[in-house]
Amino acid sequence: MSLNNDTICALATASGLGAIAIIRVSGAGSKALVSKNFSKELTGKISHTLHFGLFSDLEKKAIDEVLISVFDEGKSYTGEESVEISCHASPFIQQQIIQTLVSAGCRLAEPGEFSMRAFMNGNLDLSQAEAVADLIASQSKQAHHIALRQLRGNFSHELSDLRNKLIHFAALIELELDFAEEDVEFADRSQLKALVAEVLQIVKRLAQSFALGNALKNGVPVAIVGAPNTGKSTLLNQLLGEDRAIVSAIAGTTRDVIEETLNIEGILFRLIDTAGIRETTETIEALGIERSQKKIEQAGIILCLADASNAENVREVQAWQQELIQVHPDKHVLLVLNKIDIKNLELENSIAISAKNGLGMEALKNTLVALIVGNFDLQNETVVANSRHHEALIKTAEALDKVQLDLDKGTSGDFIAMDIREAMRQLGNITGAIEIDKDLLGTIFSTFCIGK
Amino acid sequence: MSLNNDTICALATASGLGAIAIIRVSGAGSKALVSKNFSKELTGKISHTLHFGLFSDLEKKAIDEVLISVFDEGKSYTGEESVEISCHASPFIQQQIIQTLVSAGCRLAEPGEFSMRAFMNGNLDLSQAEAVADLIASQSKQAHHIALRQLRGNFSHELSDLRNKLIHFAALIELELDFAEEDVEFADRSQLKALVAEVLQIVKRLAQSFALGNALKNGVPVAIVGAPNTGKSTLLNQLLGEDRAIVSAIAGTTRDVIEETLNIEGILFRLIDTAGIRETTETIEALGIERSQKKIEQAGIILCLADASNAENVREVQAWQQELIQVHPDKHVLLVLNKIDIKNLELENSIAISAKNGLGMEALKNTLVALIVGNFDLQNETVVANSRHHEALIKTAEALDKVQLDLDKGTSGDFIAMDIREAMRQLGNITGAIEIDKDLLGTIFSTFCIGK
Repeated sequence: MSLNNDTICALATASGLGAIAIIRVSGAGSKALVSKNFSKELTGKISHTLHFGLFSDLEKKAIDEVLISVFDEGKSYTGEESVEISCHASPFIQQQIIQTLVSAGCRLAEPGEFSMRAFMNGNLDLSQAEAVADLIASQSKQAHHIALRQLRGNFSHELSDLRNKLIHFAALIELELDFAEEDVEFADRSQLKALVAEVLQIVKRLAQSFALGNALKNGVPVAIVGAPNTGKSTLLNQLLGEDRAIVSAIAGTTRDVIEETLNIEGILFRLIDTAGIRETTETIEALGIERSQKKIEQAGIILCLADASNAENVREVQAWQQELIQVHPDKHVLLVLNKIDIKNLELENSIAISAKNGLGMEALKNTLVALIVGNFDLQNETVVANSRHHEALIKTAEALDKVQLDLDKGTSGDFIAMDIREAMRQLGNITGAIEIDKDLLGTIFSTFCIGK
Repeated sequence: MSLNNDTICALATASGLGAIAIIRVSGAGSKALVSKNFSKELTGKISHTLHFGLFSDLEKKAIDEVLISVFDEGKSYTGEESVEISCHASPFIQQQIIQTLVSAGCRLAEPGEFSMRAFMNGNLDLSQAEAVADLIASQSKQAHHIALRQLRGNFSHELSDLRNKLIHFAALIELELDFAEEDVEFADRSQLKALVAEVLQIVKRLAQSFALGNALKNGVPVAIVGAPNTGKSTLLNQLLGEDRAIVSAIAGTTRDVIEETLNIEGILFRLIDTAGIRETTETIEALGIERSQKKIEQAGIILCLADASNAENVREVQAWQQELIQVHPDKHVLLVLNKIDIKNLELENSIAISAKNGLGMEALKNTLVALIVGNFDLQNETVVANSRHHEALIKTAEALDKVQLDLDKGTSGDFIAMDIREAMRQLGNITGAIEIDKDLLGTIFSTFCIGK
């Protein structure tokens, strides 16, 4: 990814047949460049206006009737002078227009280059730009919610608040260093401690939210284990059946996705290897076989399904559950007692259901959501869903831990200042408030789709 | 397809991931309707301006940051007050916005409903509206050229000229009828004959062009038949090889299409059942088997490939050619003499090539194009590619033939007037200049994609 100021172009809409497609052009002189092949002169046009006309190739042969939007420098997505060409969505026409633009002096944009320019020109900070890609990829209400909050700057503001507090702290410490010979403590140590503790708590909470954020972004893999005839496929059908209508209403979801994905309260639960689960004879021995193990490795939640009407099976499944909890302390392992229409059984830390009659399904779904969301307030609290941000937050917390230790030990201001600067640097990395390495920028934006 | 005046909405861009998607809203009150869920009031905004803001759902929960274009009644594609919402191209967001619009009072548009409204409001005539669908579907330069000419009204103007001539003719005849008792001939019979002959010639030429138009629109199926080792696969690779680079530059074309489609001078040639041709042992007996017959049935052009260095094979293939010409008088059957690098052979009505060395490939390609284009001037002549138009032109010609016959026989003006009105009605059907049956309109527009 180069940081050029040349004029770039790319198809911005999804490829394939549609009524309209949009080709985006950005860079100084975009209007003049597009005007060369357009039936109207765009250079004098006011920002945010639309112009209907004929777009032709270099030999003045008509390609299409198009509607062109113009955006002035400082008023566009990228912050540069920009033009959007809305043409008929034929792949042939799109290609002809792009070829003409390239011949006229445009360069084909690299993935994410429009957003990168928006960042470079200060229209978006780095975490906001990253949110654009997440927003486009979001498949569920909650993943969408996180990405939109991030795009709209909630996370950035929070980080900026934290950084300002640390800047204030650093300023006091560094002032003290300047007057070190006079042995004056400008910074009240107990106030400093309180400030660091406050920031550290917020940073740790944000870092912790990544497990949730990641689950919301990518979906939560759920494995169901159970012996034959305990009602696994009935449970699956119950779970999927109610959801299917909702999911199939979302354009673009495929049959495959529908059959293996559950959307509960806007959170995606992915039923991993469902077909396999349906077919296998999952005895306690079978649990040991490799395929089942892999399935369980992938899962974030494991539902251990027992037949409440079969006491032996219940004991057996309880034993599995204990074993799974020991082997996978990081996973949620839940005991589900099925067939309570036949025998009503109540056990601690279990959910009682009748998959056949739909009894207890709400409780099961609520539990699945609660296991993932924990005590986070999804509506109002910032949830981190980007692993780069998570890493930076972890490093921020590490640096602040050191500051706290230094303060406790009464270490000299030099060391404290160093660690506080490291914490600030790490926080700054997230939004790009500090100078960011060009290679890192390239890596971040190259995961975007072209045209964004 | 209803002819309602309510407000409709649909996704106008291709579905799937992209940077931007556009949702189109059209109908009286569109601006006010969209404003309900947008952060800015759009009702006062000037036509052809763009407005950035936040689009929210009915519960005022943010869905996306969007850019909205507004179009006044009489200034939009449909001719109605319209709004286009440019959002992030996530299927989730698209669905949320469309659901919100529907809840706010929009109806989901039926396929082609935007274009149908454009027709109903006089923005496009019927043949222009039909050209929109053809334009979007056009995969080659020539198909695109025909559709764009049609969209821009060239065909409509031609038809309108013809109709005006017939109207003039009809007026004279009908005037004569009004004064029938006075036995006056207002219309000079020889002038009338000349006029009908002129119109008839143009109409017949247009009707004839349909074979070409259909070939350009849908591609020309080409079958290659030949005995093993006559160089069929080498010929295929030569033909495809040069073309592949060009075709693969077109976004959205798939491997399958690339491997079986040839683009020569902007005309698509489809190599039918290529895999089969490559594999089979096509002896003269094999020609009789069903699969080969089917392949040949589909073809518009049959290339009979002979090995010029093998006299017996040449005779054999010439015999096939004669047989094929007799059985399929409607197809182009061409003898291709391969391996002229080994033995240079010249025969009448054949093309000599060396598939191995690429000799004669240009001549072969030029011949393929010439077989299809015939004496039509693709650049400047109107070519009809729509079967509905073709049918109407045939019926127009039939009616005019009758007029000509009547004039020759000196038939009374009543009959002539009737036939001339029928000719006018048929021509009018094409552009919708006359009242069109609602069911027919529904059929025409239902083949469109949604959002157009």
